[in-house]
Amino acid sequence: MDCMIAVHLEAGAVSIRDKAAPERAAGFALLKTRVAGICNTDLELQRGYYGFLGTPGHEFVADVVEADNSALVGRRVVGEINLACGRCEFCAIGLGRHCLNWTVLGIVKHAGAFAEFFTLPEANLHVVPGGISDEEAVFVEPLAAACEILDQVEIPRAEQVAVLGPGKLGSLIAQVLRAHGANVTVFSRNMAKPRAAYRFVVDATGSAEGLKEAIAMARPRGTVVMKSTVHGDVPVDTAAVIVNEISLIGSRCGRFEPALELLKSRQVDVRSLLHAEFPLGEAAQAFAEAAKPGVLKILFRF
Amino acid sequence: MDCMIAVHLEAGAVSIRDKAAPERAAGFALLKTRVAGICNTDLELQRGYYGFLGTPGHEFVADVVEADNSALVGRRVVGEINLACGRCEFCAIGLGRHCLNWTVLGIVKHAGAFAEFFTLPEANLHVVPGGISDEEAVFVEPLAAACEILDQVEIPRAEQVAVLGPGKLGSLIAQVLRAHGANVTVFSRNMAKPRAAYRFVVDATGSAEGLKEAIAMARPRGTVVMKSTVHGDVPVDTAAVIVNEISLIGSRCGRFEPALELLKSRQVDVRSLLHAEFPLGEAAQAFAEAAKPGVLKILFRF
Repeated sequence: MDCMIAVHLEAGAVSIRDKAAPERAAGFALLKTRVAGICNTDLELQRGYYGFLGTPGHEFVADVVEADNSALVGRRVVGEINLACGRCEFCAIGLGRHCLNWTVLGIVKHAGAFAEFFTLPEANLHVVPGGISDEEAVFVEPLAAACEILDQVEIPRAEQVAVLGPGKLGSLIAQVLRAHGANVTVFSRNMAKPRAAYRFVVDATGSAEGLKEAIAMARPRGTVVMKSTVHGDVPVDTAAVIVNEISLIGSRCGRFEPALELLKSRQVDVRSLLHAEFPLGEAAQAFAEAAKPGVLKILFRF
Repeated sequence: MDCMIAVHLEAGAVSIRDKAAPERAAGFALLKTRVAGICNTDLELQRGYYGFLGTPGHEFVADVVEADNSALVGRRVVGEINLACGRCEFCAIGLGRHCLNWTVLGIVKHAGAFAEFFTLPEANLHVVPGGISDEEAVFVEPLAAACEILDQVEIPRAEQVAVLGPGKLGSLIAQVLRAHGANVTVFSRNMAKPRAAYRFVVDATGSAEGLKEAIAMARPRGTVVMKSTVHGDVPVDTAAVIVNEISLIGSRCGRFEPALELLKSRQVDVRSLLHAEFPLGEAAQAFAEAAKPGVLKILFRF
């Protein structure tokens, strides 16, 4: 059995372990990591979200080492992180991301990409076009999550949109909505926030207070897109939601195609979001750095 | 100046006072109350919701005593409770119910119908067809609030829908959705609630816990309609909303036309929701009775 080094997360502690390299099942590709990014969700996993134990990591660029489909072998890929069973009613209608038996790379019951090797279904993989560097391609997963908003909500071009949260995801969302044609204002924590002013507000604060602020900024019959996954219950002024008939739309991962297209056509710039690179062996330092306020994307370089 | 008796709500106490009868402004009708109903919102007002002080009452049937439009005088009417300014941008696009300068009969800055006389804009009034009794017509306002769901959310006929809350509003919602063709199950507090089972869930519990239960019952990409106006913040598991990409739709008042049509065509039965009648002079007892668990509609008969 081959060995590899991998990040291990247990009871809030980040360590490096020697683990057995995974073996691929039929339909799965064995992947060798090139670059992986630390997401806020990884920091939430460290804090106990999902009761996580094991190897995290779901933002990656990797080379295909083994696969059923020989055309994939040797290619540089990114991959959708939700593993669908292919058999349940949601899979049957093309909503594999909501599969009833789902697992999620590096989040729910499937070892992640903060390791030399990991596996994913071949159906999840997207070959990265040559013009997109590793440092750009590693943003495809969060960029797809930003693009998901446009798959869920119809935002007219030239519409005024407020994005709360100037962090990594907020910045990607602002860029995606601007590429769509919207007139986006990004609000940081301390900026004055106009009340009942926007038809569309996106909460990407990553904080429990963001949703309440977003609701207060939405106009009657307005839409608040919820992008802040926060551990535990969040206080919501439901009377305001009801009286103003606001729609709150939970929004998660998205399709990779529009994200790859935005990178390829250079309609978004992700390089400005890069903060620092670490080798995998310094994972504990990398997690600590990623958790500091104002720090943007931290990458592991393999 | 003419005098009248009216309910007065102040610091949680319900009393009866002699007040000056209101004078109607241009465009307003002077109304003489026939029957009025106590709504859960009235009980919330008593608890301090909106910092209310004055005469509540927004569910009514009344006779038009004076009006600019002489065709209205002497007619038996019900009326939409939101007073729109007619000049702001929401009024301009026909969303007077979201008027920026709104007042609300018996709720926000406009004296209500728990009085011998009150006023409303003539544009808010709907003449009650002869086949509908006072005891039925007094349900038009909450019935319209139930109908509002179908104006906001497209529910396929024969769809399974869960309604949480077996009270007055929950019962009206269930009847409206059944008349629409949906397959409705009403859940009371102690019933077992299947998880992730429904594409549409309506929270009409009137309690802070209802929304959380509704979210847990909704399927991925499902819709939760929020009908429980609760004072203060409500804890919400936003991570579940985001991971399952659930839409939470705040829903308030509705148009009166579909409600009157449902009553006229006998597609809903509101008589079973009547609990007791009181004279206005026994308002304190009526409020106390309405607040008891399991009590349905309490009416004031003038």
